[in-house]
Amino acid sequence: MARKTGSHSEITGPRIRAAAEHLFARHGYAAVSMRQIAAEVGVQAGALYLYTPDKQSLLADLMRDHLDGLLAACAALPPVNGPEARLDQFARFHIGYHIDRPDAVFVAYMELRNLEPANFTAIEALRRRYENTLEAILRDGRAAGVFAVPDTKLATLALIAMLTGVTNWYREGGRLGRAEVEAIYAAMALNAVGASPLPTR
Amino acid sequence: MARKTGSHSEITGPRIRAAAEHLFARHGYAAVSMRQIAAEVGVQAGALYLYTPDKQSLLADLMRDHLDGLLAACAALPPVNGPEARLDQFARFHIGYHIDRPDAVFVAYMELRNLEPANFTAIEALRRRYENTLEAILRDGRAAGVFAVPDTKLATLALIAMLTGVTNWYREGGRLGRAEVEAIYAAMALNAVGASPLPTR
Repeated sequence: MARKTGSHSEITGPRIRAAAEHLFARHGYAAVSMRQIAAEVGVQAGALYLYTPDKQSLLADLMRDHLDGLLAACAALPPVNGPEARLDQFARFHIGYHIDRPDAVFVAYMELRNLEPANFTAIEALRRRYENTLEAILRDGRAAGVFAVPDTKLATLALIAMLTGVTNWYREGGRLGRAEVEAIYAAMALNAVGASPLPTR
Repeated sequence: MARKTGSHSEITGPRIRAAAEHLFARHGYAAVSMRQIAAEVGVQAGALYLYTPDKQSLLADLMRDHLDGLLAACAALPPVNGPEARLDQFARFHIGYHIDRPDAVFVAYMELRNLEPANFTAIEALRRRYENTLEAILRDGRAAGVFAVPDTKLATLALIAMLTGVTNWYREGGRLGRAEVEAIYAAMALNAVGASPLPTR
């Protein structure tokens, strides 16, 4: 079927990234070839190089897109007042965003070891920026006397690990629905920093 | 150099497992060949098959050994009284055990996808047994009225994810020492289940 040349990159780009993410998550970056990615997309390997210079760029793009999307969605949250409400909102947001993207989360965590130094630095800076949004909430809560957090950096890493862990086991249609899981974890996050959970919404 | 035949399997077994664990953690199971493992150990590929039938068995053995060691070490903890003291002890133990074994932790998490069904079932049963030791503490604390945990299963998974996350960033000689990190996380774990942190030891 003929296709307009102009639409080629728009249609193929997202499909290449989706195929690469799926294969990297399934087999690991080092075990996946550009040829396999091309076969999954249904194009010749040569066509991939019209889109991306190499597999390393594809990996770095996937991670950057994931973190860019996360940061943009986080920045777009409606403003809420007070550190407790902000932490409650952050916890629910973090879980909701990540359980929809288990492959991206898995690749982002697992394949940091395979990023070349310049890419690693860039990805780490984005990850740090996201962590800083949570740490700012914890600092504000401590300054306001509503959170008891001896070390805001450690508490940030602890909460993010706790919340991200949901992607390891959550399945739609399981024992607990998404809203219940989010509420239980948000309450544990508030407890963990010495605050009281908010009344159930 | 001549070596007694009897010592061959004793000496080579642990070295093969250490090499496999290191290579799996670095490159991923699917990207590592038996030939590479043999080269890392400094033996011919054929010598590996005297020790293990195949790469899948090697992976399952690594994960089983890791979980067997974890369960044995946990069972050998000195008895302490009361759910709060037991959770405090569990949290410190979990962190201490895992930060000494970052490769094993990484492989255990990352390579579950590469276990064949029978191996997956066996490894999951061991993991579940470990989780049950924590869940028993949470149940006892809830029954005693000292923990506020709406769902002990979720709290178990949340705490294990939080505590294991330390392996992602902890380095000896960093800003905080091991005992400080363990104390801060143990306090967060107690807070997370609605209890008060114990006085500093």
